[in-house]
Amino acid sequence: MSFQFERIALIGIGLIGSSLSHVIRKNRIARTITGYARSESTRRKAVELKLVDAVSGTAADAVKDADLVILCSPVGTYGVLAQEISATLKPGAILTDVGSVKAAVVRDVQPHVPQGVHFIPGHPIAGTEQSGPESGFAELFINRWCILTPLPEADATAVEKLAGFWKACGSNVELMTPEHHDLVLAITSHLPHLIAYNIVSTAADLEEVTDSEVIKYSAGGFRDFTRIAASDPTMWRDVFLNNKDAVLEMLGRFSEDLSALQRAIRWGDGDMLFNIFSRSREIRRNIIAAGQDTAAPDFGRSTPKPQ
Amino acid sequence: MSFQFERIALIGIGLIGSSLSHVIRKNRIARTITGYARSESTRRKAVELKLVDAVSGTAADAVKDADLVILCSPVGTYGVLAQEISATLKPGAILTDVGSVKAAVVRDVQPHVPQGVHFIPGHPIAGTEQSGPESGFAELFINRWCILTPLPEADATAVEKLAGFWKACGSNVELMTPEHHDLVLAITSHLPHLIAYNIVSTAADLEEVTDSEVIKYSAGGFRDFTRIAASDPTMWRDVFLNNKDAVLEMLGRFSEDLSALQRAIRWGDGDMLFNIFSRSREIRRNIIAAGQDTAAPDFGRSTPKPQ
Repeated sequence: MSFQFERIALIGIGLIGSSLSHVIRKNRIARTITGYARSESTRRKAVELKLVDAVSGTAADAVKDADLVILCSPVGTYGVLAQEISATLKPGAILTDVGSVKAAVVRDVQPHVPQGVHFIPGHPIAGTEQSGPESGFAELFINRWCILTPLPEADATAVEKLAGFWKACGSNVELMTPEHHDLVLAITSHLPHLIAYNIVSTAADLEEVTDSEVIKYSAGGFRDFTRIAASDPTMWRDVFLNNKDAVLEMLGRFSEDLSALQRAIRWGDGDMLFNIFSRSREIRRNIIAAGQDTAAPDFGRSTPKPQ
Repeated sequence: MSFQFERIALIGIGLIGSSLSHVIRKNRIARTITGYARSESTRRKAVELKLVDAVSGTAADAVKDADLVILCSPVGTYGVLAQEISATLKPGAILTDVGSVKAAVVRDVQPHVPQGVHFIPGHPIAGTEQSGPESGFAELFINRWCILTPLPEADATAVEKLAGFWKACGSNVELMTPEHHDLVLAITSHLPHLIAYNIVSTAADLEEVTDSEVIKYSAGGFRDFTRIAASDPTMWRDVFLNNKDAVLEMLGRFSEDLSALQRAIRWGDGDMLFNIFSRSREIRRNIIAAGQDTAAPDFGRSTPKPQ
């Protein structure tokens, strides 16, 4: 069996980069993995953990001779990185990324892509609250969706080849425009993270309730929000700075709906509360049926394992 | 070994009532369990599943001769139930509940408690998104906190005895006033549920993003909110109707903080976003250290089990 790619370059080796390395090794997707990370300690760790066959001190060096280059650092870094690697990208190579926003990535990266290199933005909808080169694992992408947002002029064969890469990682692949991606992810990912960060912050600032009480009684629901709010702050800062319009639009709708609930609570409108609360179970059921979450109560945390 | 109680009556046999039945059986906490449920089908199911030794068609009948009576139905039902059982409660019995609010429970129940019966409100901070007599399991209360809110005139021996019951169920016990309980739970449980219900509702109403897209890409964070929002609508309606002031107070703070984040996004204030996002990891770490959540990334859903 031949490899899908001779050489893959990972630019950024955190949760996603290291998970890609594990799955590329495990499923023998590429012969060689090269890597670049901004910090010396991450570069050393990547070599120690055998995540890469060779690590480079510059991104320009890491992408040399690579057939597939994947930007895996926070989206705020892509513009500068694209400029840095522009001259050393191999003709015919595919350049992609894993960023959580897409229109801003096109804006920042596209101007630096040389003729003959296929730039196809991408976003695997997968992750955990952990970060860094030690947090990755090969199974992260299994049964998750990877969205590709090729530009209208994209080469169909290159898109097909990149889709094949993600399928080899265990993912399903969907194509859409960068703008639609940013709208969809604003509601399924960006707003949930913003809300989670916000409630943790609100709780931390209370005078009448101590931090220790918040922690002790967090099993009432709060603890779930702290998991999402433990995600990488740099990555998420960059997401919100780069998907402003869609996030503000979703946030406006969320706040409007929340005001209506607030009013129902103030005026004791039990019927309205009951009706809103009754809508959610079907969506939950459909998410489980689509294989996007476990059916186990409480995510399987507190329940005994089935025999 | 003798039983802590001769006879326990469970009034309401849903997730909490059935879980109590399992742990009472498993840890041999009482000799006999009697039960009452409003619906004929739940009563039949409770007998079938051997959750109770005897089921009654009225709450008044179920509490006869019980040493410990536990109200396990939605808090909106407690006033009427307390009135119904008032005449048949055994002198010296302990009457408690598992409701998610406490001041309103004191308001609704206390007037109906006869002389010689020890009324001690309680609230185990434990649950899953499932409901009904088939959803219970004996391990639900292990390492969770149960808050008791005895009135100033409460009998110390009775409080001690009820605390012993919850410890026998595997829980830790804390005492506080009903008012403080309602404030603490407003932030650790009620507001998280309200926000989760709200975002699921906002997502369901979008025109530009289909339900099918919300479901497919829910692994970006949204799916976590759907679990909490799949909780019992009747129970949660009653919580919000009965903890209005504390919930409105916390909701006001949450919305204020969210407006500040919204402004930071609109004006591109990356430093503010980064600072807020950086505060949360410590709270998460402390919740894990306190044994109130799993340390496994993504609640252990997507990661391989350790060998």
